[in-house]
Amino acid sequence: MKVDIEREIQQSAEDSARRIRELLAARKVFAVNLISSPGSGKTTLIEAAIDAMRGKKRIAVIEGDIETDIDAARIRKHGVQAHQINTRSSCHIQPFLLLAALDHIDLDKTDLLFVENVGNLVCPAEVPLGEDVRIVALSVTEGDEKPLKYPLVFKTSDLLVITKTDLLPHVKFDPDRVKIAARAVNPGIEIFEISAVTGYGLPAFLRRIETLCDRKNG
Amino acid sequence: MKVDIEREIQQSAEDSARRIRELLAARKVFAVNLISSPGSGKTTLIEAAIDAMRGKKRIAVIEGDIETDIDAARIRKHGVQAHQINTRSSCHIQPFLLLAALDHIDLDKTDLLFVENVGNLVCPAEVPLGEDVRIVALSVTEGDEKPLKYPLVFKTSDLLVITKTDLLPHVKFDPDRVKIAARAVNPGIEIFEISAVTGYGLPAFLRRIETLCDRKNG
Repeated sequence: MKVDIEREIQQSAEDSARRIRELLAARKVFAVNLISSPGSGKTTLIEAAIDAMRGKKRIAVIEGDIETDIDAARIRKHGVQAHQINTRSSCHIQPFLLLAALDHIDLDKTDLLFVENVGNLVCPAEVPLGEDVRIVALSVTEGDEKPLKYPLVFKTSDLLVITKTDLLPHVKFDPDRVKIAARAVNPGIEIFEISAVTGYGLPAFLRRIETLCDRKNG
Repeated sequence: MKVDIEREIQQSAEDSARRIRELLAARKVFAVNLISSPGSGKTTLIEAAIDAMRGKKRIAVIEGDIETDIDAARIRKHGVQAHQINTRSSCHIQPFLLLAALDHIDLDKTDLLFVENVGNLVCPAEVPLGEDVRIVALSVTEGDEKPLKYPLVFKTSDLLVITKTDLLPHVKFDPDRVKIAARAVNPGIEIFEISAVTGYGLPAFLRRIETLCDRKNG
Protein backbone atom coordinates (compact mmCIF):
# COMPACT_ATOMS: atom_id res chain seq x y z
CA MET A 1 0.00 0.00 0.00
CA LYS A 2 2.81 2.38 0.88
CA VAL A 3 4.45 1.69 -2.46
CA ASP A 4 1.19 2.45 -4.26
CA ILE A 5 0.84 5.79 -2.56
CA GLU A 6 4.46 6.70 -3.23
CA ARG A 7 3.96 5.76 -6.86
CA GLU A 8 0.81 7.88 -7.00
CA ILE A 9 2.57 10.93 -5.56
CA GLN A 10 5.48 10.38 -7.94
CA GLN A 11 3.08 10.03 -10.88
CA SER A 12 1.26 13.21 -9.94
CA ALA A 13 4.58 15.11 -9.71
CA GLU A 14 5.60 13.81 -13.14
CA ASP A 15 2.22 14.83 -14.58
CA SER A 16 2.60 18.36 -13.26
CA ALA A 17 6.17 18.60 -14.56
CA ARG A 18 5.01 17.42 -18.00
CA ARG A 19 2.23 20.01 -18.04
CA ILE A 20 4.72 22.73 -17.08
CA ARG A 21 7.04 21.61 -19.89
CA GLU A 22 4.21 21.66 -22.43
CA LEU A 23 2.96 25.05 -21.27
CA LEU A 24 6.42 26.62 -21.44
CA ALA A 25 7.08 25.06 -24.86
CA ALA A 26 3.77 26.43 -26.22
CA ARG A 27 4.62 29.93 -24.96
CA LYS A 28 8.29 29.69 -25.97
CA VAL A 29 9.54 30.32 -22.47
CA PHE A 30 12.97 29.01 -21.48
CA ALA A 31 13.01 27.89 -17.85
CA VAL A 32 15.96 27.66 -15.45
CA ASN A 33 15.66 25.71 -12.19
CA LEU A 34 18.22 27.27 -9.84
CA ILE A 35 19.28 25.16 -6.86
CA SER A 36 21.74 25.72 -4.01
CA SER A 37 22.18 25.77 -0.24
CA PRO A 38 20.63 28.71 1.59
CA GLY A 39 22.63 31.86 1.03
CA SER A 40 24.78 30.77 -1.91
CA GLY A 41 23.73 33.80 -3.92
CA LYS A 42 20.85 32.54 -6.08
CA THR A 43 18.79 35.72 -5.82
CA THR A 44 21.85 37.89 -6.44
CA LEU A 45 22.59 35.84 -9.57
CA ILE A 46 19.06 36.40 -10.87
CA GLU A 47 19.31 40.13 -10.14
CA ALA A 48 22.54 40.25 -12.12
CA ALA A 49 20.88 38.41 -15.03
CA ILE A 50 17.94 40.83 -15.04
CA ASP A 51 20.20 43.86 -15.14
CA ALA A 52 22.53 42.41 -17.77
CA MET A 53 19.79 41.19 -20.12
CA ARG A 54 17.54 44.25 -19.88
CA GLY A 55 16.21 45.04 -23.36
CA LYS A 56 17.40 41.67 -24.69
CA LYS A 57 15.37 39.07 -22.78
CA ARG A 58 12.10 39.50 -20.96
CA ILE A 59 12.75 37.82 -17.65
CA ALA A 60 10.23 36.58 -15.10
CA VAL A 61 11.04 35.00 -11.75
CA ILE A 62 9.29 32.51 -9.50
CA GLU A 63 10.75 32.47 -6.02
CA GLY A 64 10.52 29.46 -3.74
CA ASP A 65 10.90 29.77 0.02
CA ILE A 66 9.47 28.01 3.04
CA GLU A 67 8.19 31.35 4.33
CA THR A 68 8.31 35.10 3.49
CA ASP A 69 8.12 36.96 0.18
CA ILE A 70 11.41 38.76 0.76
CA ASP A 71 12.94 37.49 -2.47
CA ALA A 72 9.99 38.21 -4.79
CA ALA A 73 9.83 41.76 -3.38
CA ARG A 74 13.58 42.11 -3.99
CA ILE A 75 13.21 40.93 -7.60
CA ARG A 76 10.22 43.19 -8.34
CA LYS A 77 12.37 46.22 -7.60
CA HIS A 78 14.22 45.37 -10.82
CA GLY A 79 11.00 45.93 -12.77
CA VAL A 80 10.28 42.36 -13.84
CA GLN A 81 7.43 39.97 -13.11
CA ALA A 82 7.95 37.96 -9.94
CA HIS A 83 5.79 35.57 -7.98
CA GLN A 84 6.55 34.03 -4.59
CA ILE A 85 5.80 30.42 -3.71
CA ASN A 86 5.76 29.57 0.00
CA THR A 87 6.26 25.85 0.34
CA ARG A 88 5.55 25.93 4.13
CA SER A 89 6.73 22.51 5.28
CA SER A 90 8.09 21.30 1.94
CA CYS A 91 11.87 21.30 1.46
CA HIS A 92 11.60 21.95 -2.29
CA ILE A 93 9.23 23.45 -4.86
CA GLN A 94 6.65 20.83 -5.75
CA PRO A 95 5.68 20.71 -9.44
CA PHE A 96 2.00 21.34 -8.70
CA LEU A 97 2.95 24.53 -6.82
CA LEU A 98 5.04 25.72 -9.76
CA LEU A 99 2.23 24.91 -12.19
CA ALA A 100 -0.18 27.03 -10.10
CA ALA A 101 2.40 29.82 -9.79
CA LEU A 102 2.65 30.08 -13.60
CA ASP A 103 -0.91 31.48 -13.57
CA HIS A 104 0.56 34.59 -11.96
CA ILE A 105 3.10 35.17 -14.74
CA ASP A 106 2.23 36.57 -18.16
CA LEU A 107 4.09 33.96 -20.18
CA ASP A 108 3.42 35.75 -23.47
CA LYS A 109 5.65 38.53 -22.15
CA THR A 110 8.36 36.19 -20.93
CA ASP A 111 11.40 34.78 -22.74
CA LEU A 112 13.35 33.50 -19.77
CA LEU A 113 11.89 32.21 -16.52
CA PHE A 114 14.08 31.76 -13.46
CA VAL A 115 12.70 29.40 -10.84
CA GLU A 116 14.63 29.89 -7.62
CA ASN A 117 14.16 26.75 -5.59
CA VAL A 118 14.13 26.49 -1.79
CA GLY A 119 17.66 26.80 -0.38
CA ASN A 120 18.55 23.13 -0.08
CA LEU A 121 21.18 20.99 -1.76
CA VAL A 122 19.28 17.73 -1.25
CA CYS A 123 15.52 17.61 -1.86
CA PRO A 124 15.17 19.88 -4.93
CA ALA A 125 17.60 17.61 -6.79
CA GLU A 126 15.08 14.78 -6.72
CA VAL A 127 12.24 16.75 -8.29
CA PRO A 128 12.23 17.72 -11.97
CA LEU A 129 10.08 20.81 -12.49
CA GLY A 130 9.83 20.65 -16.27
CA GLU A 131 12.78 23.05 -16.58
CA ASP A 132 14.97 23.37 -19.67
CA VAL A 133 18.15 23.79 -17.70
CA ARG A 134 19.07 23.00 -14.13
CA ILE A 135 21.79 25.11 -12.52
CA VAL A 136 23.43 24.36 -9.18
CA ALA A 137 25.19 27.21 -7.41
CA LEU A 138 27.91 26.59 -4.84
CA SER A 139 29.61 29.42 -2.97
CA VAL A 140 33.30 29.24 -2.16
CA THR A 141 32.49 29.50 1.54
CA GLU A 142 30.73 26.11 1.49
CA GLY A 143 33.76 23.90 0.93
CA ASP A 144 35.15 22.17 -2.13
CA GLU A 145 34.07 18.62 -1.20
CA LYS A 146 30.35 19.31 -1.60
CA PRO A 147 29.86 17.45 -4.94
CA LEU A 148 31.01 14.27 -3.20
CA LYS A 149 28.71 14.76 -0.22
CA TYR A 150 25.64 15.85 -2.21
CA PRO A 151 26.15 14.04 -5.52
CA LEU A 152 22.60 14.02 -6.91
CA VAL A 153 22.24 17.75 -7.42
CA PHE A 154 25.59 17.90 -9.23
CA LYS A 155 24.74 14.80 -11.26
CA THR A 156 21.39 16.19 -12.43
CA SER A 157 22.50 19.76 -13.13
CA ASP A 158 23.57 21.05 -16.54
CA LEU A 159 25.62 23.93 -15.17
CA LEU A 160 27.56 24.49 -11.97
CA VAL A 161 28.21 28.08 -11.02
CA ILE A 162 30.80 28.68 -8.31
CA THR A 163 29.77 31.92 -6.61
CA LYS A 164 31.41 34.51 -4.32
CA THR A 165 34.88 34.02 -5.80
CA ASP A 166 35.78 37.43 -4.33
CA LEU A 167 35.95 35.62 -0.96
CA LEU A 168 38.55 33.09 -2.21
CA PRO A 169 41.48 34.87 -0.48
CA HIS A 170 39.68 34.51 2.87
CA VAL A 171 38.56 30.85 2.79
CA LYS A 172 39.98 27.39 2.21
CA PHE A 173 38.49 26.44 -1.15
CA ASP A 174 40.23 24.97 -4.14
CA PRO A 175 38.17 25.58 -7.31
CA ASP A 176 40.07 22.81 -9.10
CA ARG A 177 39.11 20.32 -6.40
CA VAL A 178 35.44 21.18 -6.73
CA LYS A 179 35.63 20.90 -10.52
CA ILE A 180 37.22 17.46 -10.31
CA ALA A 181 34.59 16.35 -7.79
CA ALA A 182 31.70 17.73 -9.84
CA ARG A 183 32.99 16.11 -13.05
CA ALA A 184 33.45 12.81 -11.23
CA VAL A 185 29.68 12.63 -10.69
CA ASN A 186 28.74 14.46 -13.92
CA PRO A 187 31.41 14.52 -16.65
CA GLY A 188 29.30 16.76 -18.90
CA ILE A 189 28.59 19.52 -16.38
CA GLU A 190 29.56 23.03 -17.53
CA ILE A 191 31.33 25.02 -14.84
CA PHE A 192 31.49 28.77 -14.36
CA GLU A 193 33.16 30.85 -11.66
CA ILE A 194 31.67 34.20 -10.77
CA SER A 195 31.65 37.02 -8.27
CA ALA A 196 28.56 39.17 -8.17
CA VAL A 197 30.56 41.71 -6.12
CA THR A 198 33.39 42.27 -8.62
CA GLY A 199 31.50 41.10 -11.73
CA TYR A 200 34.19 38.48 -12.41
CA GLY A 201 32.94 35.73 -14.72
CA LEU A 202 29.39 37.04 -14.89
CA PRO A 203 29.37 38.00 -18.60
CA ALA A 204 30.49 34.52 -19.73
CA PHE A 205 27.95 32.81 -17.49
CA LEU A 206 25.04 35.04 -18.54
CA ARG A 207 26.03 34.75 -22.21
CA ARG A 208 25.79 30.99 -21.87
CA ILE A 209 22.26 31.22 -20.46
CA GLU A 210 21.27 33.58 -23.28
CA THR A 211 22.65 31.13 -25.86
CA LEU A 212 20.73 28.24 -24.33
CA CYS A 213 17.59 30.37 -24.23
CA ASP A 214 18.01 31.37 -27.90
CA ARG A 215 18.57 27.76 -28.88
CA LYS A 216 15.13 26.89 -27.57
CA ASN A 217 13.26 29.93 -28.80
CA GLY A 218 15.28 31.11 -31.79
CA MET B 1 -4.90 5.17 4.34
CA LYS B 2 -2.21 7.71 3.56
CA VAL B 3 -2.80 9.36 6.94
CA ASP B 4 -2.41 6.00 8.69
CA ILE B 5 0.93 5.35 7.04
CA GLU B 6 2.20 8.83 7.81
CA ARG B 7 1.14 8.35 11.42
CA GLU B 8 2.90 4.99 11.52
CA ILE B 9 6.15 6.45 10.18
CA GLN B 10 5.87 9.35 12.62
CA GLN B 11 5.20 6.93 15.49
CA SER B 12 8.18 4.80 14.56
CA ALA B 13 10.43 7.91 14.47
CA GLU B 14 9.17 8.98 17.89
CA ASP B 15 9.78 5.48 19.26
CA SER B 16 13.36 5.51 18.03
CA ALA B 17 13.94 9.02 19.43
CA ARG B 18 12.57 7.91 22.81
CA ARG B 19 14.83 4.86 22.82
CA ILE B 20 17.83 7.06 22.01
CA ARG B 21 16.90 9.42 24.84
CA GLU B 22 16.58 6.54 27.31
CA LEU B 23 19.85 4.96 26.20
CA LEU B 24 21.75 8.24 26.51
CA ALA B 25 20.19 8.97 29.90
CA ALA B 26 21.16 5.52 31.20
CA ARG B 27 24.76 6.02 30.05
CA LYS B 28 24.88 9.67 31.16
CA VAL B 29 25.73 10.94 27.70
CA PHE B 30 24.82 14.50 26.80
CA ALA B 31 23.81 14.75 23.12
CA VAL B 32 23.95 17.75 20.81
CA ASN B 33 22.08 17.75 17.49
CA LEU B 34 23.95 20.19 15.25
CA ILE B 35 22.06 21.54 12.25
CA SER B 36 22.95 24.00 9.49
CA SER B 37 23.14 24.52 5.76
CA PRO B 38 25.94 22.70 3.94
CA GLY B 39 29.27 24.36 4.63
CA SER B 40 28.35 26.54 7.61
CA GLY B 41 31.17 25.12 9.67
CA LYS B 42 29.57 22.34 11.71
CA THR B 43 32.53 19.95 11.47
CA THR B 44 34.98 22.75 12.23
CA LEU B 45 32.94 23.62 15.32
CA ILE B 46 33.10 20.03 16.54
CA GLU B 47 36.84 19.89 15.91
CA ALA B 48 37.27 23.04 18.01
CA ALA B 49 35.18 21.52 20.82
CA ILE B 50 37.27 18.33 20.80
CA ASP B 51 40.52 20.25 21.04
CA ALA B 52 39.25 22.67 23.70
CA MET B 53 37.68 20.01 25.93
CA ARG B 54 40.49 17.46 25.72
CA GLY B 55 41.03 15.98 29.19
CA LYS B 56 37.77 17.48 30.45
CA LYS B 57 35.03 15.80 28.42
CA ARG B 58 35.18 12.53 26.52
CA ILE B 59 33.65 13.44 23.18
CA ALA B 60 32.22 11.13 20.52
CA VAL B 61 30.83 12.18 17.17
CA ILE B 62 28.23 10.76 14.80
CA GLU B 63 28.44 12.31 11.37
CA GLY B 64 25.47 12.45 9.00
CA ASP B 65 25.94 12.89 5.27
CA ILE B 66 24.12 11.74 2.17
CA GLU B 67 27.35 10.15 0.94
CA THR B 68 31.05 9.83 1.89
CA ASP B 69 32.79 9.36 5.21
CA ILE B 70 34.95 12.45 4.77
CA ASP B 71 33.76 14.02 8.03
CA ALA B 72 34.10 10.96 10.27
CA ALA B 73 37.64 10.46 8.95
CA ARG B 74 38.38 14.13 9.67
CA ILE B 75 37.06 13.80 13.24
CA ARG B 76 38.96 10.57 13.95
CA LYS B 77 42.23 12.41 13.35
CA HIS B 78 41.50 14.25 16.58
CA GLY B 79 41.66 10.95 18.47
CA VAL B 80 38.00 10.60 19.42
CA GLN B 81 35.35 8.02 18.55
CA ALA B 82 33.49 8.83 15.35
CA HIS B 83 30.94 6.98 13.26
CA GLN B 84 29.59 7.99 9.85
CA ILE B 85 25.94 7.66 8.87
CA ASN B 86 25.21 7.80 5.14
CA THR B 87 21.55 8.72 4.71
CA ARG B 88 21.68 8.09 0.91
CA SER B 89 18.42 9.65 -0.29
CA SER B 90 17.28 11.05 3.06
CA CYS B 91 17.67 14.80 3.65
CA HIS B 92 18.17 14.36 7.39
CA ILE B 93 19.35 11.78 9.92
CA GLN B 94 16.45 9.47 10.69
CA PRO B 95 16.12 8.43 14.35
CA PHE B 96 16.37 4.71 13.51
CA LEU B 97 19.69 5.38 11.75
CA LEU B 98 21.02 7.24 14.77
CA LEU B 99 19.86 4.47 17.09
CA ALA B 100 21.76 1.92 15.01
CA ALA B 101 24.81 4.19 14.85
CA LEU B 102 25.00 4.31 18.65
CA ASP B 103 26.02 0.63 18.56
CA HIS B 104 29.31 1.80 17.09
CA ILE B 105 30.07 4.19 19.94
CA ASP B 106 31.29 3.09 23.37
CA LEU B 107 28.83 5.18 25.37
CA ASP B 108 30.45 4.25 28.68
CA LYS B 109 33.49 6.17 27.51
CA THR B 110 31.48 9.17 26.31
CA ASP B 111 30.35 12.30 28.15
CA LEU B 112 29.36 14.45 25.21
CA LEU B 113 28.01 13.21 21.89
CA PHE B 114 27.88 15.50 18.88
CA VAL B 115 25.47 14.44 16.16
CA GLU B 116 26.23 16.40 13.00
CA ASN B 117 23.11 16.32 10.88
CA VAL B 118 22.96 16.41 7.07
CA GLY B 119 23.67 19.91 5.78
CA ASN B 120 20.14 21.19 5.40
CA LEU B 121 18.24 24.00 7.11
CA VAL B 122 14.81 22.46 6.45
CA CYS B 123 14.28 18.72 6.97
CA PRO B 124 16.41 18.06 10.09
CA ALA B 125 14.37 20.68 11.96
CA GLU B 126 11.29 18.46 11.74
CA VAL B 127 12.92 15.41 13.27
CA PRO B 128 13.78 15.20 16.98
CA LEU B 129 16.61 12.71 17.51
CA GLY B 130 16.31 12.39 21.28
CA GLU B 131 19.00 15.06 21.73
CA ASP B 132 19.47 17.13 24.89
CA VAL B 133 20.27 20.29 23.02
CA ARG B 134 19.69 21.39 19.46
CA ILE B 135 22.11 23.89 17.97
CA VAL B 136 21.62 25.68 14.67
CA ALA B 137 24.69 27.19 13.02
CA LEU B 138 24.44 30.02 10.50
CA SER B 139 27.49 31.45 8.76
CA VAL B 140 27.71 35.16 8.05
CA THR B 141 27.98 34.42 4.33
CA GLU B 142 24.43 33.03 4.24
CA GLY B 143 22.55 36.26 4.84
CA ASP B 144 20.88 37.76 7.89
CA GLU B 145 17.26 37.08 6.85
CA LYS B 146 17.55 33.30 7.16
CA PRO B 147 15.57 32.91 10.44
CA LEU B 148 12.57 34.44 8.67
CA LYS B 149 12.88 32.19 5.63
CA TYR B 150 13.60 28.97 7.54
CA PRO B 151 11.76 29.59 10.82
CA LEU B 152 11.33 26.02 12.11
CA VAL B 153 14.98 25.26 12.71
CA PHE B 154 15.43 28.52 14.62
CA LYS B 155 12.20 27.94 16.55
CA THR B 156 13.21 24.44 17.65
CA SER B 157 16.86 25.16 18.48
CA ASP B 158 18.16 26.00 21.94
CA LEU B 159 21.27 27.76 20.70
CA LEU B 160 22.11 29.72 17.57
CA VAL B 161 25.77 30.00 16.73
CA ILE B 162 26.72 32.58 14.12
CA THR B 163 29.87 31.26 12.46
CA LYS B 164 32.68 32.66 10.28
CA THR B 165 32.53 36.14 11.84
CA ASP B 166 36.06 36.69 10.50
CA LEU B 167 34.37 37.14 7.09
CA LEU B 168 32.10 39.97 8.33
CA PRO B 169 34.24 42.72 6.75
CA HIS B 170 33.77 41.06 3.34
CA VAL B 171 30.02 40.34 3.29
CA LYS B 172 26.72 42.11 3.82
CA PHE B 173 25.51 40.65 7.10
CA ASP B 174 24.14 42.46 10.12
CA PRO B 175 24.45 40.26 13.25
CA ASP B 176 21.84 42.41 15.02
CA ARG B 177 19.36 41.79 12.23
CA VAL B 178 19.80 38.03 12.47
CA LYS B 179 19.43 38.16 16.26
CA ILE B 180 16.19 40.11 16.01
CA ALA B 181 14.88 37.68 13.39
CA ALA B 182 15.89 34.60 15.40
CA ARG B 183 14.33 35.96 18.60
CA ALA B 184 11.14 36.82 16.71
CA VAL B 185 10.59 33.11 16.07
CA ASN B 186 12.21 31.92 19.31
CA PRO B 187 12.49 34.50 22.11
CA GLY B 188 14.44 32.09 24.35
CA ILE B 189 17.17 31.15 21.88
CA GLU B 190 20.72 31.72 23.15
CA ILE B 191 22.97 33.33 20.57
CA PHE B 192 26.73 33.11 20.19
CA GLU B 193 29.04 34.61 17.57
CA ILE B 194 32.24 32.79 16.74
CA SER B 195 35.10 32.53 14.31
CA ALA B 196 36.93 29.23 14.17
CA VAL B 197 39.71 31.00 12.26
CA THR B 198 40.50 33.68 14.84
CA GLY B 199 39.04 31.86 17.85
CA TYR B 200 36.72 34.79 18.56
CA GLY B 201 33.78 33.81 20.78
CA LEU B 202 34.70 30.12 20.86
CA PRO B 203 35.55 29.91 24.59
CA ALA B 204 32.17 31.36 25.68
CA PHE B 205 30.26 29.08 23.31
CA LEU B 206 32.15 25.93 24.34
CA ARG B 207 31.87 26.84 28.02
CA ARG B 208 28.11 27.02 27.58
CA ILE B 209 28.01 23.52 26.08
CA GLU B 210 30.16 22.21 28.94
CA THR B 211 27.81 23.77 31.49
CA LEU B 212 24.78 22.23 29.84
CA CYS B 213 26.56 18.87 29.71
CA ASP B 214 27.51 19.10 33.41
CA ARG B 215 23.96 20.02 34.32
CA LYS B 216 22.75 16.72 32.88
CA ASN B 217 25.53 14.50 34.15
CA GLY B 218 26.84 16.26 37.24
